[in-house]
Amino acid sequence: MDAAAPKPPKTIAISPLAPGSFPDLAPIKGVRLGGVGVGVRYSGRLDVMVALADPGSVVAGCYTKSLARSACVDWCRKVQKAGKVRAIIVNSGNANAFTGKAGIASVKRTAAAATRLFGCKENEVYIASTGVIGEPLPDERITAGLPGAAKALKEAGWLDAARAIMTTDTFPKGATASLEIDGKRVTINGIAKGSGMIAPDMATMLGFVFTDAAIARDALQAMLTRAIDRSFNAITVDSDISTSDTMLLVATGAAGNRRITAPSGAGARAFQKALDQVLGDLAQQVVRDGEGAEKFVTIEVTGAATPRAARRIGLAIANSPLVKTALAGSDPNWGRIAAAVAKGGEKADRDKLRIAIGGVAICDKGQRIEGYDETPVARYMKGREIVIAVDVGIGRGKATVWTCDLTHRYIEINADYRS
Amino acid sequence: MDAAAPKPPKTIAISPLAPGSFPDLAPIKGVRLGGVGVGVRYSGRLDVMVALADPGSVVAGCYTKSLARSACVDWCRKVQKAGKVRAIIVNSGNANAFTGKAGIASVKRTAAAATRLFGCKENEVYIASTGVIGEPLPDERITAGLPGAAKALKEAGWLDAARAIMTTDTFPKGATASLEIDGKRVTINGIAKGSGMIAPDMATMLGFVFTDAAIARDALQAMLTRAIDRSFNAITVDSDISTSDTMLLVATGAAGNRRITAPSGAGARAFQKALDQVLGDLAQQVVRDGEGAEKFVTIEVTGAATPRAARRIGLAIANSPLVKTALAGSDPNWGRIAAAVAKGGEKADRDKLRIAIGGVAICDKGQRIEGYDETPVARYMKGREIVIAVDVGIGRGKATVWTCDLTHRYIEINADYRS
Repeated sequence: MDAAAPKPPKTIAISPLAPGSFPDLAPIKGVRLGGVGVGVRYSGRLDVMVALADPGSVVAGCYTKSLARSACVDWCRKVQKAGKVRAIIVNSGNANAFTGKAGIASVKRTAAAATRLFGCKENEVYIASTGVIGEPLPDERITAGLPGAAKALKEAGWLDAARAIMTTDTFPKGATASLEIDGKRVTINGIAKGSGMIAPDMATMLGFVFTDAAIARDALQAMLTRAIDRSFNAITVDSDISTSDTMLLVATGAAGNRRITAPSGAGARAFQKALDQVLGDLAQQVVRDGEGAEKFVTIEVTGAATPRAARRIGLAIANSPLVKTALAGSDPNWGRIAAAVAKGGEKADRDKLRIAIGGVAICDKGQRIEGYDETPVARYMKGREIVIAVDVGIGRGKATVWTCDLTHRYIEINADYRS
Repeated sequence: MDAAAPKPPKTIAISPLAPGSFPDLAPIKGVRLGGVGVGVRYSGRLDVMVALADPGSVVAGCYTKSLARSACVDWCRKVQKAGKVRAIIVNSGNANAFTGKAGIASVKRTAAAATRLFGCKENEVYIASTGVIGEPLPDERITAGLPGAAKALKEAGWLDAARAIMTTDTFPKGATASLEIDGKRVTINGIAKGSGMIAPDMATMLGFVFTDAAIARDALQAMLTRAIDRSFNAITVDSDISTSDTMLLVATGAAGNRRITAPSGAGARAFQKALDQVLGDLAQQVVRDGEGAEKFVTIEVTGAATPRAARRIGLAIANSPLVKTALAGSDPNWGRIAAAVAKGGEKADRDKLRIAIGGVAICDKGQRIEGYDETPVARYMKGREIVIAVDVGIGRGKATVWTCDLTHRYIEINADYRS
C-alpha cells in the first residue's frame, strides 16, 4: 500500500442494470486463483489478480486490434505461439500502454518474477494491465505482491479475481456453464472487466475463461474466436477501442474427456454452445456496467445485405450519440435511429425501412405508420431493458448488437476519471 | 401561428464560444432575403427563410452523403441539373426526412407555391428543411406564410434569415468577405445553421452563401466543393451524419467582373480564398455552437501517411467520447488521445507518436516526456480554446480538424429535444 496513492474515484453506485449477485462458480480442476491489493494506483482495494493453471494446460487468446497495443498485449501475443500457460498476472489501475521501452521492461520483470515464483517457463506466463494510459507502471509493487498472492490462491478465488481486475466497473463480472462431454462433467468459468472504452474489436475489456475440458490448442483458438465474434464483437458502450483488450481461454484437460482436436464434432459443438453462453453473458454484463448506463439496449437488425452489414448498421445505431441520448431521455425518437442506419455506409433502402421499439411498429416503408400512438412506446422506453428492431429491407443479413444509453453519469465518470 | 404547437425547447443560453455579435453583412446586388414565423413546430419565432435571387443567377450545391436523404435534398439535387436559381425556401422545426411519399408531395406543393408567387420555373426553386426527423411536414403553414415572406424580403435581411433557419443553435451564424476581381468589388455573404448531428460529410447543417461575382456554374461548383472539403468536412460535433445537409452557393453576377469560367486563374484563386474564409468561418461557428460545447478544440495532425489519413486520424480523436469528456473535464489525458489515434485504422507508429497540448510537448516517441509537468497544461485546458497537436510519425500528410467537448449540456439538449 502507498499512502500517497491517489484516492479511488468518487464512490460509484452499482449499475442499476447489474445482475442480482455474482454467480456461484464451481471449482475447476487444475485452476487456482485470487486477488491481492498492492496499491498500483488506488489504495484499499484488490488490484492484482493471479491465476495458476496446472502443468499441461493450453491457452487460446484474442487481443485488441488497436495499432497501439500495450506492452503486455505484445507480450501475450508473443508467448502465445507456444500455446502453454501456467500463470496469468493482471493488474488494474494502470494499463501500461504508451509507456515505451520502460513498459516493455516492466512486463519482462513481472514475467521473470512469476517464472521464479511458480517454477515455470517465461512463455507460460501471461500478463494483462488495465487502467490509465500513458503513465509508467510501478511494476515493483506488483512483483513485491506476488508471493503473497501465490499463498492466497484457491480453487474458489473467482470473486476476488473478478474484483481485482475492475477499474470503473461497478460490479464484478462472472459467468459459468457446465455440460457433459463423453459422459464427463465439464465446467467453463469466466470473469471479465469492462465499463468504458468499449467497442469492437474487442471492447476495452479483459476476460479470463477457464475450463477443465481437454481440448487441443488450435481447436480451442477456433472456438474462442467464434465465441468472441458473437459476444464481445457485438457490443459497444462508447465506440472507443482500447490498447489493452485481452481474452484468454485456458483448458486444463482435467475433466478427462477424450481430447477435442477439431472445432467440429458433437463434443466441440456442445462446448462451443456453452462457451458462447459464458462469453455472451460476460459481454452483456460489460454493457450492463457501461459507464453511466441506465438502460440495456438490444438492437436487432434484419434485412441487411449480409450479416456483416447488419452488424455494422447495428453498431452505427448503437454508437450514435443522438440515439444514445434519446434512449437516456426515454424518447422514442425513431428519426435518429433511421438517420443512423443511413449514415453507416451500408446498403439500406430508405423507402423500405421498418423500425419497431418494444415490439411496437413505428415506421414502415420509410415513414411513420398511420395512426401510430407514441404513448405506450414512450412508457416502455422508461424501462431498463429496451429492444429496438430495424429491418433495412434489402436482404437477409441479420445481427444483434448490445449497447447502453449515454447519460450524465458517463460524463461525470469520464470528465473526472484521472483528476 | 398555431396555439397548439409545442413550445420551443427550454431557453438555451448562448454558447460561451459564440462570437461577440452577428457580423455586418453588406447587401449583395441581386439578392433579397428575410425570415417569417409560421409555426412549423414552435410558435413565437422565425421559422421560414426565403431568399430571392435576380434572374440569371447560377447556383452550386453540396449535399449530405447519407443514404437516406430527405425529400428536399432529393429535390435540390434534381433541380440543380439546370444550375439556375431564383428562390430558396427553408424551414426549421421539421426536417421532412423519413416522410415517404407525403414528404415528396410537401416539397412539390411548396415549390409550386414559390413558382406562382415569384413567377419562376420549378427548377429555379430550392427547398431545405431542418428539425425533427420522421414527422409529417405541415407544408400548408409554409405555403400560407410565403406571400408575407415575399413582402418582407430585403437586401439587409441577413440576420432574420440566419435566425429563421436555427434549430438547437444558440446564436445566428453569418460570415462575409470581400475582394476585387478585375477592379470590381465582389462580396461573399453566408449564413448557416448547425449545432448537433454534425459530422462530415457534411455535418447536419444548412448553409446559404451568396455572391455578386460573375462565375460560370461549373467553376462555381468546383470552388464550392473545394471550400467545403476544407471547412465543413473537417468539423465534427457528435459524429452523426444528417439526412438534410445542404450548402448552396448562389452567384448573381451583378458585380460586373469578367465572368470566371474555370476554377483556375487569378480571379478564381482570389475568389476561392475568400470563399474558403467565409465557409471556414461558418464551419467553425457551427462547432462553437456544438450542442453543449464549452470548449473550441483545434486538432492539428501531422506526420500521417496522406492528408486523407491525417483527416481521419483527426476525426477519430475528435469523435472519441473519452477524449471529448476529458476535454470537458479539463483533463490533459493524452493517453485517450493516443488510443484514439490508434483506433482509426490509419497507419501510425506507436513508438514515434508525439502529442502536444497548447504547445507543450507531453508525449514523444510514444511515451511521456521525462520530467513532464502537467500543471501548466491542466491550467491551459481550463480555457475555452484548446489546441491539440499530434504527429503520427510516419509521413508528411497533415490536416486540421475542429470539434468541441462533450458536456452535460449535450445530454440535456438531446435527451429532451423532442419531449
